[in-house]
Amino acid sequence: MKVELERQILAANDVLAAENRALFSQAGVFVVDLMASPGAGKTSTILATIGALRDRYSIAVIEGDIASKVDAEKVRAHGIPAVQINTGGACHLESAMVRRAVDTLDLEALDLIVVENVGNLVCPSDFDLGEHAKVMILSVPEGHDKPLKYPNIFQVSEAVILNKYDTLGVFDFDEAAFRSVVASLNPRAPIFPISATKGDGVPVWTEWLAARIESARGATA
Amino acid sequence: MKVELERQILAANDVLAAENRALFSQAGVFVVDLMASPGAGKTSTILATIGALRDRYSIAVIEGDIASKVDAEKVRAHGIPAVQINTGGACHLESAMVRRAVDTLDLEALDLIVVENVGNLVCPSDFDLGEHAKVMILSVPEGHDKPLKYPNIFQVSEAVILNKYDTLGVFDFDEAAFRSVVASLNPRAPIFPISATKGDGVPVWTEWLAARIESARGATA
Repeated sequence: MKVELERQILAANDVLAAENRALFSQAGVFVVDLMASPGAGKTSTILATIGALRDRYSIAVIEGDIASKVDAEKVRAHGIPAVQINTGGACHLESAMVRRAVDTLDLEALDLIVVENVGNLVCPSDFDLGEHAKVMILSVPEGHDKPLKYPNIFQVSEAVILNKYDTLGVFDFDEAAFRSVVASLNPRAPIFPISATKGDGVPVWTEWLAARIESARGATA
Repeated sequence: MKVELERQILAANDVLAAENRALFSQAGVFVVDLMASPGAGKTSTILATIGALRDRYSIAVIEGDIASKVDAEKVRAHGIPAVQINTGGACHLESAMVRRAVDTLDLEALDLIVVENVGNLVCPSDFDLGEHAKVMILSVPEGHDKPLKYPNIFQVSEAVILNKYDTLGVFDFDEAAFRSVVASLNPRAPIFPISATKGDGVPVWTEWLAARIESARGATA
């Protein structure tokens, strides 16, 4: 019964996700769903991304958290519109939550929406929000063995950001082993080593994202 | 409907959890459920705990992971019995999974079972496994704002381990702010700053745990 209900919840979520995606595509806005563990640096990566792309693109952020509004406030402090979703205990965002947040934004005026999912390497990977791409962040302190333990999120992500790369010398992180397991799970996903707070490596990630934004705009032109 | 079913699942879980707890108490074995984000150092903390207490107590470990058996192998390499549970996608352990694992152990011969939950700051906090205490680990690289974003897990934990404390100088972690929010959520929970891999601070945590193990033995005597 539990499995059957989970299937129904996922199916209902997928219907609304498809509607979201059609809405985004019609408006020519590219939507990326950023997933990671708590503290891997989602918000820092979003701020670095905003810094790199704000002169070229109009950006908004949807912040998903169990509780608090600290992340939306951090983004708004940079003059970027941010909508905070509090899931009230739920371990992931769903397409209906994203739709309510999107309804408060002027989609036609936007080129990019970054959705920051709840900090969790498990549940967010099962839920389509209507985004065009899921991207995940792993941070060096979490350890190189994480793709073995949380394979699904590495499989559904179109790109993998390896954050806090500047701390590689502090932790026992085997980058070759990490890359090998990620490649076996998802051979086409690029890996972007970055330090979100210091800026190293950020341009390679943001140019990949810019290329995706251009494709979304081209598709509606 | 979703909320009602979640309530039913939790209620069914609680019935079996109570049975587990009675079984543990009867055997005089203390069971701790260790919860944390992926990569916060659950397995390293377990190995440090084994190192500190193995001469005094008979210990077994139950390892919960979505996939892989790497953690159980790490524990067994130290000569300690370890049962690996693979949840096959589920984001938390449930009492039925723990029961099946426990059935493979000789409870009467044990003083302590450490259950390593799936790496997740959300879902494990909702599920009683029949343990005597839930304890959580936050690691310094995750950031001091995590109690604001994931309040529930801080509320249900009897103690909070602050791991990777030796990297405090590398990250922008405001320990006073962290302690203040934890105290507001859970005034009675002690905070144990440790470095699981280097050993600093470990004795304070393991002596707290030893006192709990002694209580569990005394209760059956």
